[in-house]
Amino acid sequence: MQRRPFLATLGATAAAFTTGARAQEVPGKKLGWALVGLGSLSTNQIAPALAKTKHCKLAAIVTGTPAKAETWKKQHGLQDSHVYNYETFDRIAENPDVDVIYVVLPNSMHEEFTIRGAKAGKHVFCEKPMGNSADECRRMIAAMKAAGKQLGIGYRCQFEPHHRECMRFTREKVFGPLKFIEAGFGFQIGDPTQWRLRKEPAGGGALMDVGIYALQTCRYLTGEEPVEIVAQEIKTDPVKFAEVDETVSWSMKFPSGVLASVMTTYGFNGTNFFTATCQNGRFGMDPAYNYDGLKGWTSRPNVKLAFPAVDHFQAEMDAFAEAILNDKPFAPSGEEGLKDLLAIEAIYRSIREGKAVKVGAV
Amino acid sequence: MQRRPFLATLGATAAAFTTGARAQEVPGKKLGWALVGLGSLSTNQIAPALAKTKHCKLAAIVTGTPAKAETWKKQHGLQDSHVYNYETFDRIAENPDVDVIYVVLPNSMHEEFTIRGAKAGKHVFCEKPMGNSADECRRMIAAMKAAGKQLGIGYRCQFEPHHRECMRFTREKVFGPLKFIEAGFGFQIGDPTQWRLRKEPAGGGALMDVGIYALQTCRYLTGEEPVEIVAQEIKTDPVKFAEVDETVSWSMKFPSGVLASVMTTYGFNGTNFFTATCQNGRFGMDPAYNYDGLKGWTSRPNVKLAFPAVDHFQAEMDAFAEAILNDKPFAPSGEEGLKDLLAIEAIYRSIREGKAVKVGAV
Repeated sequence: MQRRPFLATLGATAAAFTTGARAQEVPGKKLGWALVGLGSLSTNQIAPALAKTKHCKLAAIVTGTPAKAETWKKQHGLQDSHVYNYETFDRIAENPDVDVIYVVLPNSMHEEFTIRGAKAGKHVFCEKPMGNSADECRRMIAAMKAAGKQLGIGYRCQFEPHHRECMRFTREKVFGPLKFIEAGFGFQIGDPTQWRLRKEPAGGGALMDVGIYALQTCRYLTGEEPVEIVAQEIKTDPVKFAEVDETVSWSMKFPSGVLASVMTTYGFNGTNFFTATCQNGRFGMDPAYNYDGLKGWTSRPNVKLAFPAVDHFQAEMDAFAEAILNDKPFAPSGEEGLKDLLAIEAIYRSIREGKAVKVGAV
Repeated sequence: MQRRPFLATLGATAAAFTTGARAQEVPGKKLGWALVGLGSLSTNQIAPALAKTKHCKLAAIVTGTPAKAETWKKQHGLQDSHVYNYETFDRIAENPDVDVIYVVLPNSMHEEFTIRGAKAGKHVFCEKPMGNSADECRRMIAAMKAAGKQLGIGYRCQFEPHHRECMRFTREKVFGPLKFIEAGFGFQIGDPTQWRLRKEPAGGGALMDVGIYALQTCRYLTGEEPVEIVAQEIKTDPVKFAEVDETVSWSMKFPSGVLASVMTTYGFNGTNFFTATCQNGRFGMDPAYNYDGLKGWTSRPNVKLAFPAVDHFQAEMDAFAEAILNDKPFAPSGEEGLKDLLAIEAIYRSIREGKAVKVGAV
């Protein structure tokens, strides 16, 4: 009796992936990716990374800016038929060269283009934060499930070897049981007119954009969901940060007894770390969240935390492609994105209401 | 009109110090210290430090344990007339060799022996935490003021050169304005029967005992008092920590816009640090709060944070003696101890009530 709901869920998940499997998705094939949104991240990180992947290739672009379309067409040798704008996007359903939609748009557009991607019958890889609310995430998950397609979230650090080794440290209790996490990620944001400083497109400020990395670390080191959060915000520039959070600090309780103390900011540079304190030792990274130059450390001279650099974007895109090609569930999935949004909503609610807040259920 | 309350306060303080000045308190004289409570701290730290001071000497002991009295008498060449127990303590008023009472008792006894010291007409130096509540601190301050004697609190780090240099960094904005502080101090406490784990003598757990160091750091780096605090506590061993806090994490807002994220624990070893993030750079210490082996760092290769070791106890006792001998106000005074207790009370209240708490007024 007790096992039935679990088996039913497993069955449904397996069915979803089976439905998602196509004849063309065989090992050896390079999956075609359509980049939706050609901002700085697509230009400077994702396109160069795509060129280095084993299982992926740039197949199409989606942009609202004709000049960008021209530049990218030339640079990447794309045909006109593989260039879309936000109105013509849905025709991508008829393009057999496109297997995956990579949503690299402002946060408020993630839901729309994920759901349109699902309706076009494509797999979707979506940048973090997954959406501006847990409800947006739930609708995205439902749409992908209905389409029988995979949904992956761009949590690049989960594919970075230092971070993966840290996950192993806690899972295998290399330093004994985890007791406490300190983490923080922030930077001094520039241009005051950018969309990241407006509530409607961004959903929030530093927390949504970079605090989510530190939050992720706490979740993947514990392997648990936070149960209760207390948070504080401080605004030193109420004009620049009129719509979104500038600096936020929060504390979270995890079911196993781990406490985490975390911060994020758009107000100043420097904080880019995590420290995990375990019963018998410690480890951490600083910097922890940059695209390169990451540095790890441990309290034991004989336990190193040092790996050659990898391209995080290349690694996550190949991992997503491998999951699709092998018809295996992908993590971090939409559920992972939803869980972060549940914690983020609790942090914002704690700030607003000035009280400890229980994290909502999936 | 506006200046009158300030001048009145200043006058009262100056009068107190003038009253406190005695003919015998001239430069060159070594002040006689009476140690009240001969536990581990007195034995291993304070007595050896006293022997190294320039302006102090061990003049008397106060203990409830006759065997300890015998050992100390022999070891330090004390006469019977300079050995007191808790009942005979008040006779110390008649002992001209005793200038300063150093209260090294369990926290709940600080108030009683500070007030009895004041009534005996002696200066009092009291270990941290100053008392178990802000009200206890207020009564101690009032008693010392009435006696016209100095009250100092044993915040040894304020006399340690790394910490003092960090105070200079923030005061002189060497790295630009201070923006954020991360700090923590904890250790795995041993013997489950010790008084530090009982609410009545200790007033609280890790926060009262070692968290107070991290709290102090935030206060002396900002030079401000926290205005609002949110806190969380986690207990992984509800038997051992039935009466006092095991692990506490809190966030504090300071008036100038600094946010601080702080933790303390009795549950595990390793956390012993602070990191100060400023507009143009960072600095910190790890370990920060040990008696020796402290290590400082800064983000600038040309700004060092490295000093030869000093005996913290020697430094603070000599500083207190110098203040007395020169009839100058001493810091950290009782007011400093009171301000920590106000923050600590806000932290405990935030935990109990699950909400953001304003820090009480002096």
